[in-house]
Amino acid sequence: MSILVVGSVAYDTVETPFGRAEKVLGGSASFFSVAASFFAPVNLVAVVGDDFSEKAMSAFQGRPVDLEGLERTAGKTFHWQGKYSYDLNSRETVCTDLNVFEFFKPRIPDRYRRSEHVFLGNIDPVLQRQVLDQVDRPRLVACDTMNFWISGKPEELKRTLAAVDILLINDAEARQLSGEWNIVKAARAIRAMGPHTLVIKKGEHGVLMFSEDGSFAAPAYPLEEVFDPTGAGDTFAGGFLGYLAGSPTLDEAALRRAVIMGSTLASFCVEAFSLDRLLTLSRPEIDARYRLFKRLTHFEEV
Amino acid sequence: MSILVVGSVAYDTVETPFGRAEKVLGGSASFFSVAASFFAPVNLVAVVGDDFSEKAMSAFQGRPVDLEGLERTAGKTFHWQGKYSYDLNSRETVCTDLNVFEFFKPRIPDRYRRSEHVFLGNIDPVLQRQVLDQVDRPRLVACDTMNFWISGKPEELKRTLAAVDILLINDAEARQLSGEWNIVKAARAIRAMGPHTLVIKKGEHGVLMFSEDGSFAAPAYPLEEVFDPTGAGDTFAGGFLGYLAGSPTLDEAALRRAVIMGSTLASFCVEAFSLDRLLTLSRPEIDARYRLFKRLTHFEEV
Repeated sequence: MSILVVGSVAYDTVETPFGRAEKVLGGSASFFSVAASFFAPVNLVAVVGDDFSEKAMSAFQGRPVDLEGLERTAGKTFHWQGKYSYDLNSRETVCTDLNVFEFFKPRIPDRYRRSEHVFLGNIDPVLQRQVLDQVDRPRLVACDTMNFWISGKPEELKRTLAAVDILLINDAEARQLSGEWNIVKAARAIRAMGPHTLVIKKGEHGVLMFSEDGSFAAPAYPLEEVFDPTGAGDTFAGGFLGYLAGSPTLDEAALRRAVIMGSTLASFCVEAFSLDRLLTLSRPEIDARYRLFKRLTHFEEV
Repeated sequence: MSILVVGSVAYDTVETPFGRAEKVLGGSASFFSVAASFFAPVNLVAVVGDDFSEKAMSAFQGRPVDLEGLERTAGKTFHWQGKYSYDLNSRETVCTDLNVFEFFKPRIPDRYRRSEHVFLGNIDPVLQRQVLDQVDRPRLVACDTMNFWISGKPEELKRTLAAVDILLINDAEARQLSGEWNIVKAARAIRAMGPHTLVIKKGEHGVLMFSEDGSFAAPAYPLEEVFDPTGAGDTFAGGFLGYLAGSPTLDEAALRRAVIMGSTLASFCVEAFSLDRLLTLSRPEIDARYRLFKRLTHFEEV
């Protein structure tokens, strides 16, 4: 069953303590699509400029990623430049050139309207709702957002959240959105806004999920070489929703496996710049690391 | 099988967003002893002043905590005063009055020399080694330390670590001690200094353990009411080593159960000031929360 993703396809310029990558493929929808494509067909809706290269485009080729919804328009592709601290735990945005993304109005191709799963990437909540208006009763709607929309368009965001099944945000965003510092209280407040499930991404500290069945905690995989964290959150979302799209059930057990699958994909993402590691990844490698997560977290009853 | 603990018994004055507690029982050895006493007999070595009250002393009564090693000397009891930020994630030390603790020279009563397990609380690494010189070939030696000793007495600390089986520290201390930012590399460097097992405490983000069998990650229990984090790390250590002292084996499976038991005890500790919650705790409550940890972390294979 297919997934519709709406978000950014961008060029990133990234500086880490280990090197620099100049105008490489980035953007939430890029990471999401490639990660999700290991599990389900993806319908991609985004916009790029006329400078978007064949090389960048080739990341989606040879995968079940439909590009009819990838609009190409006159102008430059969205460009983000960031610089990470020596410990990779904080980053500074050097510049954000929205370019053609500034006037992005998601147009959903007719063929995409029956997508059973929808991922609303981090865009204006008004546009997120317009996307939902263009799809036919999907099985599952998941959504991302950020501080910019939480503080800038809180009422619009709440209207969007009322139509969302699963919200994926980080811990600072969960606190900001709910106005609660305690994460359990924050989760309860956010779930009362609409999403039955809240997935809180904590970077190197893993993931907390709050659902109808209670809470689930998953660690991040402790990696010896973390090269570039850019895109890890979007890759998590792609692995998470991709897994669910391929799952016959959407119960608590499936949601938990999806969290681990998202964490698995994210753990590969950070091993190289851009989508480089995801593009060489194989399903057996994914399954092997999923099993390592099991080994990492297993303990016996007393 | 018994546990010898050497550390501080103190008065704490604590201010949190939820209230203030004035000169209540604190100190690493206090939290450790009460937590460990649920699983094994504890032999306590510490020093208090002549102002140490019967009420404070009563915390250890009715439990298998031997007080022959709790020296009482002329002067005032060690007093620490701290103030937590509104989110409880950082704290400021308002004052540290070492008082009688400044000249603490641990004297191990003869009866304690055969303790099978030793916990070296956070004191001068020279004193930690003197404690080890006074015990007969224990089954297991665990140790805590802090930034003050890592930067102030690095060579003495390394000599102590060479005689230690398990080191329990927080993530910032692990990075400082190893000089490595990556936590996997930090763990490898520290394990090369002596301890076969390193337990890294990350507060609300849980625990990472590195042992001969690889790595183990456990979350902290997501609590709706965190009242006072003081003593959580020492309570973790007490639950951890207490569980191992009562375990017939010390293999990887036992170490992992011990991490969860430590996390379980710590999750109760933070629910009230001082040792208040630990003192009303029952074994069935402990076992029930341990089972909640299982539920919190369980996921199936794909």
